[in-house]
Amino acid sequence: MTEEPRTRPGGRSARVRATVHQAVTELVAERGYGNFTVGEVAARAGVADTSIYRRWGNLEALAMEVAVDRLSTESSIPDTGSLDGDLRAYAVQAARDVSGPNGLALLRTILALLDTGTAGMRARDQFLAERANQLQRMLDRARARGEQAPEVIEVVDFILAPMYIRVLFGIGSLTTDYAETLVDRLLQAGANE
Amino acid sequence: MTEEPRTRPGGRSARVRATVHQAVTELVAERGYGNFTVGEVAARAGVADTSIYRRWGNLEALAMEVAVDRLSTESSIPDTGSLDGDLRAYAVQAARDVSGPNGLALLRTILALLDTGTAGMRARDQFLAERANQLQRMLDRARARGEQAPEVIEVVDFILAPMYIRVLFGIGSLTTDYAETLVDRLLQAGANE
Repeated sequence: MTEEPRTRPGGRSARVRATVHQAVTELVAERGYGNFTVGEVAARAGVADTSIYRRWGNLEALAMEVAVDRLSTESSIPDTGSLDGDLRAYAVQAARDVSGPNGLALLRTILALLDTGTAGMRARDQFLAERANQLQRMLDRARARGEQAPEVIEVVDFILAPMYIRVLFGIGSLTTDYAETLVDRLLQAGANE
Repeated sequence: MTEEPRTRPGGRSARVRATVHQAVTELVAERGYGNFTVGEVAARAGVADTSIYRRWGNLEALAMEVAVDRLSTESSIPDTGSLDGDLRAYAVQAARDVSGPNGLALLRTILALLDTGTAGMRARDQFLAERANQLQRMLDRARARGEQAPEVIEVVDFILAPMYIRVLFGIGSLTTDYAETLVDRLLQAGANE
């Protein structure tokens, strides 16, 4: 732990953000969303409760930011030069993310947030918009190259939904082969249209 | 409310079961699983707490029974004489069940039960086994007629997973057309094999 010079105010702010995010991630993994308080996040992160309230407003907004942030950084969108390559890299990465130690906790945080009314709905919409935008850019690149590309919602139906359901219900395991099979089905369905 | 004659002990037992199930269903819909106690179920059903503990052991076991029971009765398996007909009737019914007032609550009960350790795992396994057995019988009938039928897990991937994810994340609506589209995709994938 090095002391950040006072001339770089963003440094401390970024550190607090990272520490608080980490505390939320740990508490979600240990107890599940809804089973901890802002006070417990603050205690674990070593910051004052008031710092969290001032910056994030409430636990829902904080949890939303953590979930969306994690999603954006962990599931970066591939750019391999072909739709086939992009979809395979994306599916394999998504399988890895969602079956990793934080994947189930993240999914369930998103679902738990839906119970929390308006803040939860905003969190869900932000999560979905983030996911959809990432995918849309990938599919747009394919179309710009002259490839026939599926819609975002088809990627959800064919690739993400089966993975998410398998993780949520604990069915089977998300192997690379399985991820490839899901991509094959999507591409095959497109070829049949 | 008619008084059941003492010569039919099953009558009262069945009534208690129905009343307690109804109380759980209502509480799940109103508050979500995990936000009510055995005492509150008992109060709403008009029975003693001890009756619930004696019969079901704990809230997880009771919630599991309610979820599995509801699934079994509401999602009866069609028998139309063809795989195509069965799958379409099944998918349309599943879409209706899961997007109905209790569908989301049921799904989320199952997911919440996974947080409760061993009892939750048993609940999940029982839920999945029930779903899988129903489907297996339908697919077995198709094979017995000489039809080429998919595996249960393919029905989950192609039909149930997209519906469940759409309901859980609140994406789109589960129309009959959408249910039919999911069946088309499954049958098309089978035809391509």
